[in-house]
Amino acid sequence: MKYFSKQEIMDGDAMFRRHLINSLSGYKSANLIGTISPDGVPNLSLISSVVHVGASPPMQGFVMRPLTVERQTYEYIKASGQYTINHVHLDFIDKAHYASAKFGKDESEFEACQLTATYLDGHEAPYVSESRIKLGMRYEDEFLIKQNNTIMIIGTIEHIYVDDDALQPDGNLDLSKVDDVAVSGLETYYKVDKAAHFKFARVGQWPESD
Amino acid sequence: MKYFSKQEIMDGDAMFRRHLINSLSGYKSANLIGTISPDGVPNLSLISSVVHVGASPPMQGFVMRPLTVERQTYEYIKASGQYTINHVHLDFIDKAHYASAKFGKDESEFEACQLTATYLDGHEAPYVSESRIKLGMRYEDEFLIKQNNTIMIIGTIEHIYVDDDALQPDGNLDLSKVDDVAVSGLETYYKVDKAAHFKFARVGQWPESD
Repeated sequence: MKYFSKQEIMDGDAMFRRHLINSLSGYKSANLIGTISPDGVPNLSLISSVVHVGASPPMQGFVMRPLTVERQTYEYIKASGQYTINHVHLDFIDKAHYASAKFGKDESEFEACQLTATYLDGHEAPYVSESRIKLGMRYEDEFLIKQNNTIMIIGTIEHIYVDDDALQPDGNLDLSKVDDVAVSGLETYYKVDKAAHFKFARVGQWPESD
Repeated sequence: MKYFSKQEIMDGDAMFRRHLINSLSGYKSANLIGTISPDGVPNLSLISSVVHVGASPPMQGFVMRPLTVERQTYEYIKASGQYTINHVHLDFIDKAHYASAKFGKDESEFEACQLTATYLDGHEAPYVSESRIKLGMRYEDEFLIKQNNTIMIIGTIEHIYVDDDALQPDGNLDLSKVDDVAVSGLETYYKVDKAAHFKFARVGQWPESD
């Protein structure tokens, strides 16, 4: 195994550090956050930090860095209180990756990335039509991580749209049915196949895949 | 597509809700958190909520629910300030899943799950020997998410151990080389293969996989 201390990492090359540290959290989800500007320009940003926060009430969080392209996303979420979270599938990873480029305020990432904005059930923020799992979110809270000025945004899931093929009778989604991708680091995308499904773990019952 | 409003989800079956909402965040990493009790019992818990927080300084977070099996993890992190994060690979998903069962305080999950505790470079908390990507963490901060009393734990990465096969010259880890797994929901594990690697996205340069 290769060992690095924190000090070695901090003293070393910045790009190597950025790649390595971003890889260390393991596989991540790829999601497009949809917002709308006060002038009505639909906006998208690519986020790999969505995290489950709770089921009752249904809540998700994500980490955002204030000084990058995502600042528009932050401003528009704060202004309207609404945003969408849209899963990324294998057939549009290039479009989704392109949404992470730094577009200007007057330019819609939807158009630049050849993705389709759609508005559903009175939610103000645009959804990605191509996404087969889409969430309408309401802003709840945020936490400043003072060590590096990133912000954790917490939201409630108000609207859920899921592909019929992915939804299983017990409520679980089989994400491989809609070709959801996993991401590692900043720029690598992975395809995913189901390996095992266990029951809820209990002491004295060794897990066996069904 | 199937639609659910927040109200329909809250009024519906609790297990269906738990499965569905846990699936909505997309693929997640699987990590074992290693801690040690004040009495010297090594402890493990399985977490699927690790999130990248920043590279300079190197930081990760994870979401923990205070009233489950993870309470031991929380107590021991607070008591010692130290913990480890260990990636889960395809060849021990059953052992890792078993670590999510509710073991007593005097029982070490390492022994019950047939995993090997190892202590490295003066870090107090135990690592999982079988894990080919291991992090020695120092507790930094926490945030209470008041809507459901979950806690976001933030830590600094002090020690990094990575498999030579996974580490690429640019610092990225190819997680498929060590058979890292992705998780969705609470109990489904996926195997993962590289699909595409793009360059950093720039306006005017359509992403092409290299």
